[in-house]
Amino acid sequence: MGRLVMKFGGTSVADIDRIRNVARHVEREVKAGNHVAVVVSAMAGTTNQLIEWCRQAAAVHDAREYDAVVATGEQITAGLLAIVLQDMGIPARSWAGWQIPVETDGVHGSARMTNINGDGLIKRMEQGQVAVITGFQGIAPGGRVSTLGRGGSDTSAVAVAAAISAACDIYTDVDGVYTADPRIVSKAQKLDRISYEEMLEQASLGAKVLQTRSVELAMVYKVPLQVRSSFEPPDLPSQNKPDGTGPGTIVCDEEQIVEQHVVSGIAYSRDEAKVSIRHVKDKPGISAAIFGPLAENDISVDMIVQNVSSDGAFADITFTLARKDLRKAIEVLSAVKDKVGYSELAHSADVAKVSVVGIGMRSHAGVAARMFAALADKGINIQAITTSEIKVSVLIDEAYTELAVRALHQAYGLDKT
Amino acid sequence: MGRLVMKFGGTSVADIDRIRNVARHVEREVKAGNHVAVVVSAMAGTTNQLIEWCRQAAAVHDAREYDAVVATGEQITAGLLAIVLQDMGIPARSWAGWQIPVETDGVHGSARMTNINGDGLIKRMEQGQVAVITGFQGIAPGGRVSTLGRGGSDTSAVAVAAAISAACDIYTDVDGVYTADPRIVSKAQKLDRISYEEMLEQASLGAKVLQTRSVELAMVYKVPLQVRSSFEPPDLPSQNKPDGTGPGTIVCDEEQIVEQHVVSGIAYSRDEAKVSIRHVKDKPGISAAIFGPLAENDISVDMIVQNVSSDGAFADITFTLARKDLRKAIEVLSAVKDKVGYSELAHSADVAKVSVVGIGMRSHAGVAARMFAALADKGINIQAITTSEIKVSVLIDEAYTELAVRALHQAYGLDKT
Repeated sequence: MGRLVMKFGGTSVADIDRIRNVARHVEREVKAGNHVAVVVSAMAGTTNQLIEWCRQAAAVHDAREYDAVVATGEQITAGLLAIVLQDMGIPARSWAGWQIPVETDGVHGSARMTNINGDGLIKRMEQGQVAVITGFQGIAPGGRVSTLGRGGSDTSAVAVAAAISAACDIYTDVDGVYTADPRIVSKAQKLDRISYEEMLEQASLGAKVLQTRSVELAMVYKVPLQVRSSFEPPDLPSQNKPDGTGPGTIVCDEEQIVEQHVVSGIAYSRDEAKVSIRHVKDKPGISAAIFGPLAENDISVDMIVQNVSSDGAFADITFTLARKDLRKAIEVLSAVKDKVGYSELAHSADVAKVSVVGIGMRSHAGVAARMFAALADKGINIQAITTSEIKVSVLIDEAYTELAVRALHQAYGLDKT
Repeated sequence: MGRLVMKFGGTSVADIDRIRNVARHVEREVKAGNHVAVVVSAMAGTTNQLIEWCRQAAAVHDAREYDAVVATGEQITAGLLAIVLQDMGIPARSWAGWQIPVETDGVHGSARMTNINGDGLIKRMEQGQVAVITGFQGIAPGGRVSTLGRGGSDTSAVAVAAAISAACDIYTDVDGVYTADPRIVSKAQKLDRISYEEMLEQASLGAKVLQTRSVELAMVYKVPLQVRSSFEPPDLPSQNKPDGTGPGTIVCDEEQIVEQHVVSGIAYSRDEAKVSIRHVKDKPGISAAIFGPLAENDISVDMIVQNVSSDGAFADITFTLARKDLRKAIEVLSAVKDKVGYSELAHSADVAKVSVVGIGMRSHAGVAARMFAALADKGINIQAITTSEIKVSVLIDEAYTELAVRALHQAYGLDKT
């Protein structure tokens, strides 16, 4: 019992029947004695229609007007859910971002929240009224409606939870966070708990369960976060326990995870491409000459490998980037060929990144070595390596992705018995 | 040149191409040197979809949530029009009702505007920025979004015009106010000017050119109002003249109409029904016994005729009401049969009301007599009569509606030569 924020995405509120299903999830938590706020997305398809109208109106358009148009999607869902809840006898009201207010910066179209005043919400929630809140939006300085950038409604939910000191349940199409993608690894196991840091690595490594920004925010404000399924029967008794456990996966501080695994999951991303610049004269400032123009064109580079020739005069530089940026990167680098002075520009989109993630790595040696051995055992060649304190990522031929994920899942003892 | 409010309804903004057409009308007035505010409705069909979703969510629903949902329609149009205008090089921004703010009372679903602060609008308009304003909505005490009742967006446009001391052009599917419905009377003439009072009578008598409440407001605040066509070519030079004339029909004070007609128009309404209560004992309080229960059930009564028997002991009472209220009125009156003590309750929906309207009537005798003679000449029986200072209405058999309107149009010399 306590304050609870429940977040439902676009497919969970795609029509009135599904909104009714959401309302039954809310009813269950209200009956369990929780003071509930619900954060909703636009009905699936609505946001795309609104964006398409903006695009038809003008290919390039004022982000403030785009926001005014696109923010209506969540306002519709919030009003409809409030109506359904009231019809079930549950006091409820809708809140637009500007009514709370959820204050953001002025970067329309990808705003960041700067402050949420939770007083109005708390007052009404303590009177027993469910707060139905529009996700994905707020109000910018000057009083215009703003929409959030990447992170969207998940981030709204976590931010509201932080503002009102609530726990936050994110309802999605899976019932939790797994040790690997269950579509690839049949023996993948659902985790009861995962640390914020691990979840953050997983999210940024391509696991699409939670949006990266929402996990960052939860970590900073210590919001107890749960990933759970919106397809579970809504009418069962609440499975959220006073000790903070629940039916899904809890994302929390590592101290709250009693039984630590060395590795908690295997992540992968096919959204990768590789660029190799061959026979570059190895002189000071050459890296800046290559990566400066890429950064100026908003192209983020991930892994970087540099091989210097035996005489030290030339280098081959290989790096990875998001697949969507490949074409632009080639254009940018072709334009600076003379300045950089390379002999050949090669690229490939047939690569994938596979990562092992685990907080236990900090105190266990040999995690990377076991990874390389497991991959070698299957004849998988490693093209690049990058590491952080709690993850090791390798770039491999895309065709080996599933094989690699399954081999690593087994090698770290994650297979379900 | 000066401040101008331009209002466009749902069919004028039904898709992006039509919004572009609206933008060209705006561009013309901007180029003519006007400071322009545009008031828009929701795209045709949008409001109905939103209302249908509310209905599906719950048959009976909170008017505040209904307003939160339905008000999004105009917000979408306003943003899209601002984008199109900017794309044409015309500075513009959208304003939701709550941003201006347009303050209303708390009667959600049919709110009345209580105050509009025009300072922000005026400041931006004088900087050359077109204000694109959501019609049909405002903000209620307590900060919830409200939608207006009857009058809707026309009323919003007139109220904004009053707040910023502007003229107001209402764009619609006809090019002005006619002496009669041109679909019935081929010789009907477009009026250059009509007085507020006459327009008010026409609107309340069933002419659907302007909403009654908007005309009332224009009359009170002396807003120069013009009815004009959104289908005229938008790219012609502005035809609004500094002397206040324009291409449509100007609605204004009667003093501003130089050449007064005795009768300015013939109106009709088929939205009528007739109820006759026969052989009522004629005693004090009998009218209250009949009309009290009707009023309590929100049924408005229009014409009332009472015939007393030769001995004065009994009366027949006939009255008219809106056709949609007929069934309920019969139920209400059947329930009070014993109390009222009548012998028979008869009703008919096959009736129409035909009216002649003209400010000149005040100073001309014989207007009603000419009406009765013209109808008698065509063999049309008059079932009831009601008059005001500037109109005479008669109830007739519905089958004679067109014949009556044409006969009266000719009798008052309104036929185009």
